[in-house]
Amino acid sequence: MAYQTIPGLDAMHALVKYVTEPKLANPIMVCGLPGIGSVAWLAVNHLQRELKAELFAEVYSPAFSPKVWLTDDGIVKLMKGEFYFWNNTQGGSDLVLFSANEQPYSPEGQYELADVVLELAQRFQVKQVITMGGMATDSFTEHPKVYVGGTDADLVKEVESLGGVKLAGGAITGTNGLIFGLAKPKSIAAICLLAETPGYLSLDANAAKSALEMSSKLLRLHLDYSALEKQARENSDAVHKARDLSRNNLPRDRDLSYVS
Amino acid sequence: MAYQTIPGLDAMHALVKYVTEPKLANPIMVCGLPGIGSVAWLAVNHLQRELKAELFAEVYSPAFSPKVWLTDDGIVKLMKGEFYFWNNTQGGSDLVLFSANEQPYSPEGQYELADVVLELAQRFQVKQVITMGGMATDSFTEHPKVYVGGTDADLVKEVESLGGVKLAGGAITGTNGLIFGLAKPKSIAAICLLAETPGYLSLDANAAKSALEMSSKLLRLHLDYSALEKQARENSDAVHKARDLSRNNLPRDRDLSYVS
Amino acid sequence: MAYQTIPGLDAMHALVKYVTEPKLANPIMVCGLPGIGSVAWLAVNHLQRELKAELFAEVYSPAFSPKVWLTDDGIVKLMKGEFYFWNNTQGGSDLVLFSANEQPYSPEGQYELADVVLELAQRFQVKQVITMGGMATDSFTEHPKVYVGGTDADLVKEVESLGGVKLAGGAITGTNGLIFGLAKPKSIAAICLLAETPGYLSLDANAAKSALEMSSKLLRLHLDYSALEKQARENSDAVHKARDLSRNNLPRDRDLSYVS
Amino acid sequence: MAYQTIPGLDAMHALVKYVTEPKLANPIMVCGLPGIGSVAWLAVNHLQRELKAELFAEVYSPAFSPKVWLTDDGIVKLMKGEFYFWNNTQGGSDLVLFSANEQPYSPEGQYELADVVLELAQRFQVKQVITMGGMATDSFTEHPKVYVGGTDADLVKEVESLGGVKLAGGAITGTNGLIFGLAKPKSIAAICLLAETPGYLSLDANAAKSALEMSSKLLRLHLDYSALEKQARENSDAVHKARDLSRNNLPRDRDLSYVS
Repeated sequence: MAYQTIPGLDAMHALVKYVTEPKLANPIMVCGLPGIGSVAWLAVNHLQRELKAELFAEVYSPAFSPKVWLTDDGIVKLMKGEFYFWNNTQGGSDLVLFSANEQPYSPEGQYELADVVLELAQRFQVKQVITMGGMATDSFTEHPKVYVGGTDADLVKEVESLGGVKLAGGAITGTNGLIFGLAKPKSIAAICLLAETPGYLSLDANAAKSALEMSSKLLRLHLDYSALEKQARENSDAVHKARDLSRNNLPRDRDLSYVS
Repeated sequence: MAYQTIPGLDAMHALVKYVTEPKLANPIMVCGLPGIGSVAWLAVNHLQRELKAELFAEVYSPAFSPKVWLTDDGIVKLMKGEFYFWNNTQGGSDLVLFSANEQPYSPEGQYELADVVLELAQRFQVKQVITMGGMATDSFTEHPKVYVGGTDADLVKEVESLGGVKLAGGAITGTNGLIFGLAKPKSIAAICLLAETPGYLSLDANAAKSALEMSSKLLRLHLDYSALEKQARENSDAVHKARDLSRNNLPRDRDLSYVS
Repeated sequence: MAYQTIPGLDAMHALVKYVTEPKLANPIMVCGLPGIGSVAWLAVNHLQRELKAELFAEVYSPAFSPKVWLTDDGIVKLMKGEFYFWNNTQGGSDLVLFSANEQPYSPEGQYELADVVLELAQRFQVKQVITMGGMATDSFTEHPKVYVGGTDADLVKEVESLGGVKLAGGAITGTNGLIFGLAKPKSIAAICLLAETPGYLSLDANAAKSALEMSSKLLRLHLDYSALEKQARENSDAVHKARDLSRNNLPRDRDLSYVS
Repeated sequence: MAYQTIPGLDAMHALVKYVTEPKLANPIMVCGLPGIGSVAWLAVNHLQRELKAELFAEVYSPAFSPKVWLTDDGIVKLMKGEFYFWNNTQGGSDLVLFSANEQPYSPEGQYELADVVLELAQRFQVKQVITMGGMATDSFTEHPKVYVGGTDADLVKEVESLGGVKLAGGAITGTNGLIFGLAKPKSIAAICLLAETPGYLSLDANAAKSALEMSSKLLRLHLDYSALEKQARENSDAVHKARDLSRNNLPRDRDLSYVS
């Protein structure tokens, strides 16, 4: 009779699994987990598809929901984060992309996942991290503004010079914010781009496009946005219909609140 | 005066205790924890009794309920998972069975237990894992269908060829699903079999029999189902009586939802 | 600039601090944490005072309430467990006593504390563990029965021969039950004694006396119970007064439920 | 394909980051996290500004809120604790100051942070720890009394001789109390000073001044309180206005309760 503690995915630690080991030159990391309007998630997914970026690592965490998904072919998929890489064919930096099915449900799990993402960034000598998110407004905007915060003032000014609006004060909650915030004590340059989104949209492709356009300027990337634009038009039609119905019921004059 | 941290069953780790070390040839593992209709738990218990499978290891976890049970003789029993083995006398693979009194109450504990089960599977070079569960429907069925998902398409097709129905999309929650899902990144072949069960039965022996019949076809096992059938008949009588009383009150046309 | 993780009382581990290192011959351990009617806590405290047992170790846990107490002299005290020892002057086994201000508030913390207590028991080669508790009944009894469960049938029979009633089935929740239950896989002989107590008493000295009398028979100890009896008489007077007022409002015919 | 666990800020451990390594002579530590009336937080902040104490270490914890702050310049800041030092220019002990944006939200996180603070105290051979807090009363007082508890009776008597009132019994909840309480088993001399504060003020500068005046007597410091006094006057005006409006609605005759 013997006791044995079996190591593995224990109740308290995320786990990274490498599918392959990419070679990356001066990489920049772009992160976006699901959040308000799914802005960041839509943006990173669009980027991954347009660039045909390749999966190289997955991260599992006991702080994700205890469930699995099935594909249409009946194949099982865990809740997870995914890292993609793209060797830049347009002359700029290589890219690492990060997204996940969901944010960890516990605050501690969110801190840990953010840390795991940045440890991977350090391992690949990522020179800059861009996280995205949505900023709730109380009405729909055709051309959402993009707000910016950074780990230093120069990064903020660079985005301001490209049309961004400085986030002067306020708080950003959730994993997208923590990746951004934990970058600072790790001496990784990072910015957070929040696109305006009305709180009532679950998938705001229009805001995602705004956030991604700003990221692309910073990355000197040329992207085709037609898939996002198509989704945005569909959203917009639905929104206009909803506004006609509920014009007098929408909240007014609320303060802007930052939620990623 | 000295401080001391005492190792052991700390607040965050499951612990496996071996009673004996079995010799196993090409083993297949069959798992079923309590869940909807107790389908998987009933199935694994029936299998263990019919095969007279032998206990070889127990797993304790601080994520089980903080309570103990007493037998009719006043002997104490902890909440635990149990591993049984069976050296196949019918010519096929040896078996490892896994069940538990309950599912861990915390999501992290569910992830950890699923991982512990699969680590043990790897240690014994288990070549396939079968997890079971129930799929809630809104009415009682004499012959419950068995749905199937897998870690790869060939496994799913094999079960379809035996009469199973492919789980095309959807989610499976809980430990039965996690054992199935975590098998994939560990490169263990696994399938999940969900038998239809009305949500209102706490012990659905009829559904358990359906799930176990499918497992037995895969395992090329010949089992006596009379104990399950007896329990199922008793259930069925109770159900018919209940249906007569509440025919007009039962929910209709609800979508199928997958819950293990 | 450097990161540093500082070891110590981290967020997940209990910590034992030794005040002194006792020499113990064939020790038996008696445990009682606060629970229903504070039965076990009152019993262990009475035992400690009557025997003038000496503090030799304390256990701190981050799963205790995040608060401190002040004595009447303004001296701070942490929430903690305390181990006392007594070198037997009556010819029997030496004793280790364990109690605490409260039970850990999280289930994981209860499992961990129970494990810490038993690890200490193993370190001192404790040959038997006695845990106590209350069993809720729906009415006050002058002479509470004492129920017994054990890690093996002989222990149960020994207590039955002394007037105890076998706990045939049921569950015991909380740390007192877990100490008892975790003893079994650690191969430590253990019994649990539950004295009948009405659920509405917060300090039931009468039940504590019954539990302690049974423990003393097992330990072949001669104790003075006058302090407990005095407190029990005061309780009893209050209870009789309350019963006269509320005789028709008390619940009747409820099943016995086991709660430590 | 390989698994990898990445170390770092995992889901269960606070992390200390040193900005610089101060040289300290016989240091005393003064701690104050946000709590009732923000008394301790205001006091430590005033002390830090008046002494121009210098930041030397930060502590991050996954038990802080999962969010980040932005400065008016758009620079990101994590939730954190901060350690400041001051080389005494008035002839007395050097000082270490500790505060944080908030208290960890989980009890385990509060225990861990308190332990981290005291481990740092031990590393710098801190000879005494002073924690502060508020004690809720049911009415506003121009001259709040300061209550005192200590790790030994002499410390309590010293503060009584300076006008403090002994905390005879009661409990102190939260991190300020735990730093104080955990100091005792670590053999660090510590006192806790609680200034009277009405429960309805979120920032009670008047109480903060009382607590800090007592600390200054102990530290033999000469401080300028004008900033706190200005804030206290503004508070007081608001309070008097509120009292005139609600004089008959305020709770009366409530027992004093100790809350830090």
